[in-house]
Amino acid sequence: MKEFFKVVDLEEAKALASGFPPLSRERVPLVRALGRVLAADLVATADLPGFRRSTMDGYAVAAATTFGASESAPALLTVVGAVAMGERAEVMVKPGQAAKILTGGMVPTGADAVVMVEHTEPIDETTIEVTRAVAPGQNLIEPADDVAEGETVLTRGTHLRPQELGLLAALGASEVEVFARPTVAILSTGDEVVPVEETPEPGQIRDVNSTTLAALVESAGGIPLPLGIVGDDFDTLLDTCRKALTEADVILLSGGSSVGSRDLTLEVIEALPDARVLLHGVAIKPGKPTILADVGGKAFWGLPGHVASAMVVFHVLVRPHLKHLGGERPGFEIRVPARLSRNVASVHGRRDFLRVRLEERDGRLLAIPVLGKSGLIRTMVLADGIVAIGRDVEGLDEGAEVLVEPL
Amino acid sequence: MKEFFKVVDLEEAKALASGFPPLSRERVPLVRALGRVLAADLVATADLPGFRRSTMDGYAVAAATTFGASESAPALLTVVGAVAMGERAEVMVKPGQAAKILTGGMVPTGADAVVMVEHTEPIDETTIEVTRAVAPGQNLIEPADDVAEGETVLTRGTHLRPQELGLLAALGASEVEVFARPTVAILSTGDEVVPVEETPEPGQIRDVNSTTLAALVESAGGIPLPLGIVGDDFDTLLDTCRKALTEADVILLSGGSSVGSRDLTLEVIEALPDARVLLHGVAIKPGKPTILADVGGKAFWGLPGHVASAMVVFHVLVRPHLKHLGGERPGFEIRVPARLSRNVASVHGRRDFLRVRLEERDGRLLAIPVLGKSGLIRTMVLADGIVAIGRDVEGLDEGAEVLVEPL
Repeated sequence: MKEFFKVVDLEEAKALASGFPPLSRERVPLVRALGRVLAADLVATADLPGFRRSTMDGYAVAAATTFGASESAPALLTVVGAVAMGERAEVMVKPGQAAKILTGGMVPTGADAVVMVEHTEPIDETTIEVTRAVAPGQNLIEPADDVAEGETVLTRGTHLRPQELGLLAALGASEVEVFARPTVAILSTGDEVVPVEETPEPGQIRDVNSTTLAALVESAGGIPLPLGIVGDDFDTLLDTCRKALTEADVILLSGGSSVGSRDLTLEVIEALPDARVLLHGVAIKPGKPTILADVGGKAFWGLPGHVASAMVVFHVLVRPHLKHLGGERPGFEIRVPARLSRNVASVHGRRDFLRVRLEERDGRLLAIPVLGKSGLIRTMVLADGIVAIGRDVEGLDEGAEVLVEPL
Repeated sequence: MKEFFKVVDLEEAKALASGFPPLSRERVPLVRALGRVLAADLVATADLPGFRRSTMDGYAVAAATTFGASESAPALLTVVGAVAMGERAEVMVKPGQAAKILTGGMVPTGADAVVMVEHTEPIDETTIEVTRAVAPGQNLIEPADDVAEGETVLTRGTHLRPQELGLLAALGASEVEVFARPTVAILSTGDEVVPVEETPEPGQIRDVNSTTLAALVESAGGIPLPLGIVGDDFDTLLDTCRKALTEADVILLSGGSSVGSRDLTLEVIEALPDARVLLHGVAIKPGKPTILADVGGKAFWGLPGHVASAMVVFHVLVRPHLKHLGGERPGFEIRVPARLSRNVASVHGRRDFLRVRLEERDGRLLAIPVLGKSGLIRTMVLADGIVAIGRDVEGLDEGAEVLVEPL
């Protein structure tokens, strides 16, 4: 039974995982682009808005006409027409005149402000009183106020949220160039593992990892490709990995967390073409028995068999790796501050990841460590988030301020 | 032009929106259940694990046999066999004996602990030295340590994350009973609105709202059903709404934010069967011109035409409404504390929602208000989150601690 032979710390593991180049690009319809990553800068091909637009219902006027107007001394204006929605404003507004306009309407020539309908009083068919002055530019948006033609409005690597899709719609981009989503082959290994549909005999357990890892891949923007359970047999495992390499961008092999099986994983990796083990063991807990290899330019991850450990490794290493392959620019990471509910031990030189529940107490968040042996999936179900304990820290005290990454 | 006639505050609007009953249930395959909501409590049908399981590679022993063992005075044990992975442990371990076992293996009868392989030394084919004592129960998981048969492990209303799917897999639930996802019809109104594929003429704008709202519905777990653009015409709008009511659980009609068009929306609602307007106007900014009606038991939302306003209303009212219809139990809401970068004005008696960018400065997060007129989509693109300003607050000072809801 071999020891880990290439143990690295978390930062080095991240650096190794980010050495793989991003995937290719593809064009997708705008309506299918939510959560995708922009593969090219987006330059505006037109001004937004394209014309001077009212932001209120009321009357388009030359602002100077209303100067000095008040409740007691209203300005009297002649209504010369109305702006039809969705059409070029044909009417022309001169000093002393007004044109009826609705929100979103095109402000007609001669007008440089809009008086809200609430600040007007109709006198007769063609005359209104204005009871409050407006300044030039009031209650309207100028052309290009939102976006100017030629401006770079979104950059390559942007994760597309609903509002980015809205901006793309506004610019007429009914198709978008995005990075391909990584296809991730998922293999569960172990002679003791049986499919979810089967009832385990004594000594057997159901395949929890395939389901969990497929869902994690999905939530990280990848396309899971579950290849099922492979027994601890060199030839079968090698064949399945070869198949996986033809169909997927990334291989996730979990299980074989025992030293004996880890040897098998390593033997299989070494038997694959152009394979190079980048790391074997990461100085984190849980998650030490992790392998990363470069197999012909594709990432091959060996994850711990314990599902809770595999989830932590996925969270801290595989997810950022998939985001990197998918071209996503690292953005703002959500961390919620909370106070630790009890003392927690840790070991110098290793990063510990603590699963915590969050509870509000006296208006502040309390992070309550979820304890349990590493083989237990329940600890992950009970957890709202994880807390990273620094490498140079020997434990944390009750009441310590920690940053919780939501799970 | 009518005024708003049923203005309510945000809390009342939320209460009205939560008056609609949750949707029906359906069964989905486990592999398609990510992000769905459990419709029935899940009771464990078996213990997890189902047998005493090793958490280490090593030797299963009767712990008492190792008491007093140390580097200088190791215990000498006879290896009586090995536990095969995935099989019932046939070997029986007596005091003075050990059975080889791998992580996940079934601990044989007679053994109550596992000695890690690192703390043993092989002497010959059938003899090992144990250099460290183990306590009963060490390095193993007892049956039902994770989940006990008959225990309620997940409750109705639980949002299913990867780890919940893992637990369902462990319990053999290859199908899951979940709440149906709400189908949400999306209509954009306005004579000035043209489809994304068209080049707007002066006075026209592209339909930004359909794309944005569809993506918001998708991100909230609903199924968007975009029905396109409807001009400001009573009969067409009524027909489209009738169609929407037969196909969808919820109607989102945006646009017609002008008072004139709002009347049209109200007229159409009143012409629909079993319609009752629940609110007309919410005391929030942006987002005041919001309508909610109950039309034959289905929610009919009239949202502001300005996309940024519509997004805020979606965020604070429609999203929780869809989650409620989808049976989801309100859970922990992520809010990130930050300091405000500048003074912000607000009005007493109204809730203001401030869009902010987040930047790290001196190790703390700074919330920088994104300013811009309400018609601009760019403000939403630049925003990382929104800050709710309390109803009884008249503005916030620079440096004030705020809670940011990520967008």
